[in-house]
Amino acid sequence: MIRRESAAPSAGAGPADATADVVVVGGGGGGLPAALFARWLGDEVILLEKAPELGGTAKKAAFWYWIPNNRSMQEAGIEDPEEDFLHYTARLSRPQQYDPDSPTLGLSEWEHAQIRAIYESASPAAELLAERDALPYRWCEAVPDYWSELPQDKAPTGRVLVPEGARATMSDGGQVGIRTMSAAAERDGVDIRTSHRVQRLVIEGGAVVGVEATNATGETVRVAARKAVIFASGGFTHDPELRANFLSAPVYGGCAANTNEGDFVRIGGAAGAQLRNMNQAWMCPVPLEAAVAGDPSLSGMFSVAGDSMLFVDKTGRRVVNEKLPYNELAQMFFQWDPLRGEYPNLVLIQVWDQRSQEHSASDEYGRLIVGDTGASDAHVLRGETLADLEIVVRARLERYARVTGGLTLADGWADTLGASIARFNDLAKTGVDADFGRGERAVQQLFNGDVREEPGRTNPTMWPLSGEGPYYAALVTGGTLDTKGGPKATPDGQIVDDLDQPIPGLYGVGNCVASPSARAYWAGGATLGPIIAFAYRAANAAHLEPVHEEALT
Amino acid sequence: MIRRESAAPSAGAGPADATADVVVVGGGGGGLPAALFARWLGDEVILLEKAPELGGTAKKAAFWYWIPNNRSMQEAGIEDPEEDFLHYTARLSRPQQYDPDSPTLGLSEWEHAQIRAIYESASPAAELLAERDALPYRWCEAVPDYWSELPQDKAPTGRVLVPEGARATMSDGGQVGIRTMSAAAERDGVDIRTSHRVQRLVIEGGAVVGVEATNATGETVRVAARKAVIFASGGFTHDPELRANFLSAPVYGGCAANTNEGDFVRIGGAAGAQLRNMNQAWMCPVPLEAAVAGDPSLSGMFSVAGDSMLFVDKTGRRVVNEKLPYNELAQMFFQWDPLRGEYPNLVLIQVWDQRSQEHSASDEYGRLIVGDTGASDAHVLRGETLADLEIVVRARLERYARVTGGLTLADGWADTLGASIARFNDLAKTGVDADFGRGERAVQQLFNGDVREEPGRTNPTMWPLSGEGPYYAALVTGGTLDTKGGPKATPDGQIVDDLDQPIPGLYGVGNCVASPSARAYWAGGATLGPIIAFAYRAANAAHLEPVHEEALT
Repeated sequence: MIRRESAAPSAGAGPADATADVVVVGGGGGGLPAALFARWLGDEVILLEKAPELGGTAKKAAFWYWIPNNRSMQEAGIEDPEEDFLHYTARLSRPQQYDPDSPTLGLSEWEHAQIRAIYESASPAAELLAERDALPYRWCEAVPDYWSELPQDKAPTGRVLVPEGARATMSDGGQVGIRTMSAAAERDGVDIRTSHRVQRLVIEGGAVVGVEATNATGETVRVAARKAVIFASGGFTHDPELRANFLSAPVYGGCAANTNEGDFVRIGGAAGAQLRNMNQAWMCPVPLEAAVAGDPSLSGMFSVAGDSMLFVDKTGRRVVNEKLPYNELAQMFFQWDPLRGEYPNLVLIQVWDQRSQEHSASDEYGRLIVGDTGASDAHVLRGETLADLEIVVRARLERYARVTGGLTLADGWADTLGASIARFNDLAKTGVDADFGRGERAVQQLFNGDVREEPGRTNPTMWPLSGEGPYYAALVTGGTLDTKGGPKATPDGQIVDDLDQPIPGLYGVGNCVASPSARAYWAGGATLGPIIAFAYRAANAAHLEPVHEEALT
Repeated sequence: MIRRESAAPSAGAGPADATADVVVVGGGGGGLPAALFARWLGDEVILLEKAPELGGTAKKAAFWYWIPNNRSMQEAGIEDPEEDFLHYTARLSRPQQYDPDSPTLGLSEWEHAQIRAIYESASPAAELLAERDALPYRWCEAVPDYWSELPQDKAPTGRVLVPEGARATMSDGGQVGIRTMSAAAERDGVDIRTSHRVQRLVIEGGAVVGVEATNATGETVRVAARKAVIFASGGFTHDPELRANFLSAPVYGGCAANTNEGDFVRIGGAAGAQLRNMNQAWMCPVPLEAAVAGDPSLSGMFSVAGDSMLFVDKTGRRVVNEKLPYNELAQMFFQWDPLRGEYPNLVLIQVWDQRSQEHSASDEYGRLIVGDTGASDAHVLRGETLADLEIVVRARLERYARVTGGLTLADGWADTLGASIARFNDLAKTGVDADFGRGERAVQQLFNGDVREEPGRTNPTMWPLSGEGPYYAALVTGGTLDTKGGPKATPDGQIVDDLDQPIPGLYGVGNCVASPSARAYWAGGATLGPIIAFAYRAANAAHLEPVHEEALT
């Protein structure tokens, strides 16, 4: 890993080591599209990536991308008018401010302008990437939005696309999408330089004219940008100090690329950018142990598999709807107990039986029930009885006591767990989860994962746990897919100062800048769809920037 | 109100309009002590206050100040060793990281250094203020810490001081403390200039050498600092955009001085400061209507009075322990419903009967039951029956629908309320709140307010509501006393850059900088006690700064 240095802008004396019209910082799901769009406009592009290879967080993801009013919808005659899209997104981003009669629907003007930009540009951006063979796609006609039941959602299915070559389950979409975009970038002449960590901006006369990066051998490389620098360097999931001081929930980390350390928070901030939406993240449950270890292969638990499976707390009580969409489920770990002064759900214990072990095993989407798939099962604990399970869970928690505020199982955990299972089983028999609403909404069934088929059952998310062992368990907490706060950008990606004036030559897209989604996760692909839209807009705006021929000479 | 201008630092060409050794920005509970400490060291001091008069948030407060191991405790033989103090504060600030065996107790090194500084300097600072007759105090021997039952609290009472001349209930402590400190500042030659809004720093050669302010007539006033500028300008309670983009809860505002608009977030940020603890605030419930109106006289509800009183939600259900300490109670309004996509407790309805109306009325500590005290009762709704009450509550909520996401009462609210009252009454008769633990902890009884005495009852926080009207109601939400994030400062108040290096000449204390308390509200006065400690340390460090004789000449 290349060490972080000062983010204070450089005044830029001395010649550049390399020069391009547009310099893109980061080679993941935001940087690759930005570089391609800029290149296709005729600009010379240098792309600097901190890691030894391209891909960032997107390569680890399924790479769904959410494209309102996309071409496939249009061809199929599915209507998705702008006004309804704006209502749906506004309702979810700021539910406490949503006002259908307000010109901005209760959002700030900035937020409203951002969601309009998404609607306007997501589809043209996706189409251009497909036409140029950088990201051919498959339409996921049946995938619902995560809040498809809301009255504001007038196009509840049909907005999701996925890279064309992804397998049927779509879980390898990121590898496919990064491969095809990387190939297009190489084919079309983007100058890609990996193992280059951008440390700071070069600013001359108030305009950003380049960057200084450190390469793998520790040398400073000065790269001039005749028109603009576009940051797409990801969020701050892997910077513990930024997480603790900005996010609304005390997460242990998440499944973003390990290089996502908040570089643009520091670099943009040092150039006078305002930070926005710093309190929010794209959230997902994560296995506690991999999160604490900072395991770069960590996958978020996008699907909590199993029907004969439940989550319980340290006392053995069931406390959540285990099939909530991941962004919502993750937040349940951070409920606060105002009498005891603790986060009682900080770590929950997923418990399942042999049925789920056999029929819901998978190595996809971060599922913890891996069975015989060959995936690592180091996180799986096993007991012949609930009493046996208590012993191994207690011992495993003890290993993590120093990072969980001394979390331990309450006395009688196995007995309480037994009672929780009995209650769960009663509910499972009726198919109606009167306690937490499991399986009630479309998205919960979407993420159910494989389960043993039971003809005629109305709620495939629940089935009674067996009265006989073995039983299995794993430790779960809430984490991030990545954060979604950073410098504030205009709808064209221009980073603004404290009076909302663009800082000349400085752009940002993706999880390194502030998202207008606030707390919401509108749908699967609500990360990458808007990111591609903003990459398109930023490249187009950067193309029109005045040329600094004299910079860094 | 003087308009905000660009926060970008000025290069400082041209002469100063005024010069001092130390320039203090803000004349409230942080700025006045900082100015006094600096003056008493022999420095010339100019104090710039944005408002037309001194006082800031502290003037509105009771001005308790929490001083560990204070002189009165020492004289009374109450032990309060540093190590125990550090454990108590660490346990509460970062409960999920607290590790009694770690050298920093699980905190970051910065947080640990900050709480050590509080322990070391709070008492010397308080004593010096008292000795110089700027803030003579009275010891509140019996006041407990807010988490006095925790095993880490080895000095559960005795740390709170209050300005000597405050009335018995202490609610006017802020007016007294600001008056005595202002008088001392005038007496000892602090050059006080009100109606001066500091807009930006003047930076020469990397060092802060002064500020530019705007006065009431719109002129720019340039004030040079030979040694240092100390910001004590308060948090960002009254900037809706900063609140929405940083705080962990979507509050409507709070009871900070209306001038607390996050000036130092912008001014410090533009100078390269790192922001920290931006997600947290000192929280308290607030009356919804005054908060939405931005009423400058708004008081936080530091005490929710009444025994025959309860809070219910929009369905009529009781959902919280109404006597939680204010910082905890305020957070209950922001619980998230992951199935419905809303904050179901965003606005709660306080309901009480004639008994509480007569015996718990007060115009102090933000209580909503004002009775015949002469305080405004515009927020109080009244109905002869619960059904009547539903009609008026429903109508009042309708007024606020555009700022509450369309919040309205559920059908049958009065019936559900009736059932909630019946349950509450059953619990009140036993004195044990099996549902929410009301009255269980010392701090809950501390803030109970006046109630009609009932000989022999064990839980003075509860009494059955009458079966007969009239009934009363008011709308409550969560707010801030003030925020507690901003630029990161060393234990001596020096603002640091992204590599934790002090920015020469720039200091900050109080709610305008990052607090090491994270989410915790350790005790009454945990705001002002540490603020006074850091003001003392900052003044001492600023005194030793190299002198810039040439600045702004």
